[in-house]
Order: sequence, then C-alpha cells, then structure tokens
Amino acid sequence: MTAVNRRIVLDHRPDGIPGPEHFRRDDQPLPEPGDGQVLVCNHYLSIDPAQRGWISAGIGYADPVTPGAVMRALAVGAVAATRNAKYAIGEYLYGWFGWQDYCVAAEPQVIARVQPEQGSVSAGAGLYGICGVAAYLALTELGRPRAGETVLVSTAAGAVGSVVGQIARRLGCRVVGLTGSDEKVRQCLAEFGYHAALNYRSGLDDAALRTLCPHGVDIFFDNTAGEIADAVWPFMNLRGRVIQCGTAAVGSWDPPPTAPRRERAVLSKRLRHEGFIIFDHLERFAAVIAQLARWHREGTLVFHEDIVTGLECAPAALASIFRGENRGKKLVHISDGTRAL
Amino acid sequence: MTAVNRRIVLDHRPDGIPGPEHFRRDDQPLPEPGDGQVLVCNHYLSIDPAQRGWISAGIGYADPVTPGAVMRALAVGAVAATRNAKYAIGEYLYGWFGWQDYCVAAEPQVIARVQPEQGSVSAGAGLYGICGVAAYLALTELGRPRAGETVLVSTAAGAVGSVVGQIARRLGCRVVGLTGSDEKVRQCLAEFGYHAALNYRSGLDDAALRTLCPHGVDIFFDNTAGEIADAVWPFMNLRGRVIQCGTAAVGSWDPPPTAPRRERAVLSKRLRHEGFIIFDHLERFAAVIAQLARWHREGTLVFHEDIVTGLECAPAALASIFRGENRGKKLVHISDGTRAL
Repeated sequence: MTAVNRRIVLDHRPDGIPGPEHFRRDDQPLPEPGDGQVLVCNHYLSIDPAQRGWISAGIGYADPVTPGAVMRALAVGAVAATRNAKYAIGEYLYGWFGWQDYCVAAEPQVIARVQPEQGSVSAGAGLYGICGVAAYLALTELGRPRAGETVLVSTAAGAVGSVVGQIARRLGCRVVGLTGSDEKVRQCLAEFGYHAALNYRSGLDDAALRTLCPHGVDIFFDNTAGEIADAVWPFMNLRGRVIQCGTAAVGSWDPPPTAPRRERAVLSKRLRHEGFIIFDHLERFAAVIAQLARWHREGTLVFHEDIVTGLECAPAALASIFRGENRGKKLVHISDGTRAL
Repeated sequence: MTAVNRRIVLDHRPDGIPGPEHFRRDDQPLPEPGDGQVLVCNHYLSIDPAQRGWISAGIGYADPVTPGAVMRALAVGAVAATRNAKYAIGEYLYGWFGWQDYCVAAEPQVIARVQPEQGSVSAGAGLYGICGVAAYLALTELGRPRAGETVLVSTAAGAVGSVVGQIARRLGCRVVGLTGSDEKVRQCLAEFGYHAALNYRSGLDDAALRTLCPHGVDIFFDNTAGEIADAVWPFMNLRGRVIQCGTAAVGSWDPPPTAPRRERAVLSKRLRHEGFIIFDHLERFAAVIAQLARWHREGTLVFHEDIVTGLECAPAALASIFRGENRGKKLVHISDGTRAL
C-alpha cells in the first residue's frame, strides 16, 4: 500500500466569508524531503481569521493561495524524516505546513520550535503561535500602554483578545472588552483580566460605551473594523492609538464599504492608526514565547483552545470562527485515528 | 483723544467655512500691560486654515473662541510697552496676539522671537511661523522620509505644502504635488521642488495618479482629506505613512461625512495614519527656524507671502484661503496708515 497524503486544497475563491464549499480533498502520494528539508507530520492545524485574506484576491498582504493548491495554514507537526541537521526526528515544529497530513518543509517554512514542556504540543499553535505573540507585540509596540490608560479590545474573548486583556491588565491599564455573547462577557471578566465587558449584540451605543469607558479610550485594539469600530472611534482620547490587527466584522471589501470619515478625529486628537501583521516580526517569536511561557507557568496567563478532530473538519472550522462560535483558539487535531496512513 | 484698539471679534459660529458675516468690529480703549506682560503692536496677522477649527464647536483640538471675544490668531508684532525684562521695546515677537491692533500679552502667548535679519518681519508669521515649522516637523517626524521614496502633498503650493515639497526634495524623495490651478502646478514644478504636479480640478483619477506616482506613494502629506484623500489612499505603498496636517476640503463635519472604509488598507499595508498639530511642538521652534533660515539664506528654500493691508481685511482673507485664492502664505498687514491711532 502506497502511503497517502490527504490534502485540502482551495477549490475556488469565496466572495466573502469562506465555507466548506470553497475547498475540496485532493490526496497525493506521501512526499519525500529533499536536501535541507524535513518531512513534518501535522498534529494541530491552526484555524485563523487571517486565512480569509490568504485566499482572497486583492485584500491581502501576501500573494493569495492559487485554486488547486493546498490551503495555506500554520500548524504544529513532528519531524518524521529529516535531511536537515538542525531538525531531529520527533521534535515539534510550528510553521507553514498547510491543511494536509504531511508537509515537506524547507527552513523558511519553520517559524518556531515547539517546546511541549511550556504547556502542551497544541500550545505551539495557540498561546505560543501567532495569536499570543501578536497580542503581546501589537499591544506593547504599537499601543505602548501606560498604567492607568484605558484599553478597549474588540473580539475580547478571542484567541488574540483574551491574551491582550490579560497583558494590558498586567501593565496597569483599565481593560474593556467587546465580545459576541453573554457567556463570553462572563469569561472576559472571570478569566481574561477585563475590568468591564459588553456583549455588542445586546446594544453598542454611546451610552453603553460611556459607561464602559468613563475616561474614554487610549488604546483601541481592533480586530473587527465595521460598526463596532465606528462606535468606538468617537471615544478615542487625545493621542490615542488604534491598533488594526484584524477586520473580522467586514464581510466583503469589494466594493469598498463606507465608514464615517476619520481625518478630523485623527488630526484634532493626534491619533495614531496603525496596522499590525505578525509575519513582520518572526525574529521576535523566541523571546516573546519565553515571556508568555513564564507568565503561563506562574499561572497568571490563561489560554483556551477549542479543538476539533479530523483533517476534514478544517473548512467548517474556518467558517465557524467568523460566526464567533469558537471558545478559544480554534485548532484541528489530526490524530492517528483520523489519519489514513 | 483716547487711544483706540480696533478689534475684530467673533459674532457667531459658522456652520462650515467662515466668512465676513461671522465677525464684527468691537473697538476698545488701548489696554495697558500688567506685571510680567508686554503691549504688542501687531504688524502682520497670520491667516490660517486652522482658524476654522478654532471657532467651530466640536471639531477642534482647543476650546473654541467664544462669540464676542477677539478672533484668535497668530501674529507678528513689535513690543510697544513692556513690564517683562525678557522683552525689550521694539523687538518683534510671534505669538497669540489676535485680530486687533494691540494685544496685552503674557509670556505663554509668545511663541518665538522674530529676527528680521533672517528674512523679513513678515517671515516671522510665514516661513518661520507655524507653516514652515509644521512642514518641517510633520514631514520629518511623522513621515520619516527616506531617499527614493515618493512623497505626495495635497495643497502642494500652499504655505505648508510649498515648504514640504522643497524639504522632501532635499531629502532625496520623489515629490508629487496636488494643487488647485494650472498656475500653481507651474509654481510647484518651477519653484517648490516638485518632480510632478497635477491640478486636481482637471481630473484626479486612478490613471492620473498612476502616471504621477508610478511607484506608489510612501508618504501622503494630507492637508485636505475629502475626495482628494480618497483618490490617493489606494496608492499607498506597504508601510506608507499618512500625515494628517489639515482637512481643508471638508466643509462640515456635522453630520460626519462618509469615506471608503480604510481598516483593510491600514492592516494589510501596515500603514500609519497620524495627526499633526504644530502647537504640540512649541519647544522645537527655535531649532527648526534656525535650520529653515540656513536653507533660506543659501537660496535653496523659497517662500511666498500673499499680503493684504488693513485689519478690516482679515475676515475676507480667511474666507479666501478656503477658496484656494491665496498665492502663498496669507497675511494681513496692519500699517500705520490703516491704524486709527
């Protein structure tokens, strides 16, 4: 029996939010690593809002995935064969391994080594993956929070937002979260360090924001854009910072939607509105992961994972995070049981 | 005969662009300086787009002028009487002296000493006033231009833009100007250092911008907002900077106008959009003026002034700059002939 590599490829580009209909299976023989490469056996696939941008023509920061190609994804996998002396069989790596059982990976595809003793294997794609590291770097480098400032986070209970809340609180800020359900509000308050939180579906108006942020907003950590952002912007304080880390609430950018014009606010309040893409900061991963691991070991940094099992679940898992259904970082576990090999 | 201080006060707030109907004369006896104060005899009143914000409720960065109060304005004047040992009779000062013949000024109202040997008395309210200093600081501190980058300036021939063009060229940038007449286009190319310039009234579309900026825009020095900004934003390059230094093209912010939503561009291109208000940087004036004066003395920095005579011209002069009618920095000269005293 020839070993098979199950792969999920992009079938065609979605107009807005991707769903299972945009992907298809396309199995291939197990590949062999060339010189300098490793064969990675994927254990956890990372499901990220950014994947929408990676398959859309025109809105992304990288060349989009070509229809017929394996879906671009971060993942944690174990080295199953190696032709690179830097990587030993059995060690766990985090990198660009795609929605497939196995990946032949060259060095630039590897982002970090995973150290299961810092938590778990899956944490390598969660707290110690792009979400945790982006939360830390975007908040501290673009936001530059000072004790006493108010930090408002959209998608407050999400894989990025939940870490932002805890770090901002640790830095002495008043932390306010917007999230999509009453259950997540409770989670924000009980677990993620938020001083106040609101289910935006139950009414995000000026009165609600005045109550949540009596001293205005100094840092708006925005993962959503859309109407949530439009409600928050008028509350920005003098010299406030808006960190654009995602645009999850906007279904389509073609044609470009409109928003209240913001130049006057930017000018008169000397706001700074900046975009953050974690892949600009790969050289920072090791140091940031070490910091996050210290806090996690102390018990002062919690992180939730929402894991489904089976490669074939990946497309539906991606669709589900845009409906806000995940309860923590969404991962797809490829266990021995679901792997055909 | 009692000496009279002619004053122009705000009568009522405009809805949009201010005109003469929003002001009135309200003469008063000549004031006397108290302890620590000086009596300044105004020579040149500075007419600035920012004055619109200073009289509008709600859109500004400072408390608006109260109806009945002297119109807030920068000016250059000579010390006519002094009760402050720092200031000698006859020396020229630049500061918050208002639309009036005379001003009793305390120290915080003085922004800089004017050195006529650096050019002229009027230059103290022009090249060496907020326009020249803002051009230098906003471009260099927020824009951080690098040689070879493309800098695009709206209101390219204006009192700020004309200086931005010359400094950006000096720093090795490709400099592109948008301005409101063919005559100003010629001026941009012949005098203000622009490599390319366009009369936006003759058609500011994608094709025109592609021709002007074949390598995109790295720094957008925006004094206008509005449709001009909407045309330019899609041309921003990766890690581009948008400097919001004015919003002259937007007539009213109540209700807030709409614009294409920009979060996706800010995120995917890692743009930085920041507001600049010169009054945050008063401590920098002396050093920046010295630099500008060196370039001016070398003959490599030109600056145009558009001077009308007579205090009573001030309201119409303010209205005229929003119609783009000025040919350089608009100033009102209060000569002995027009002064009643």
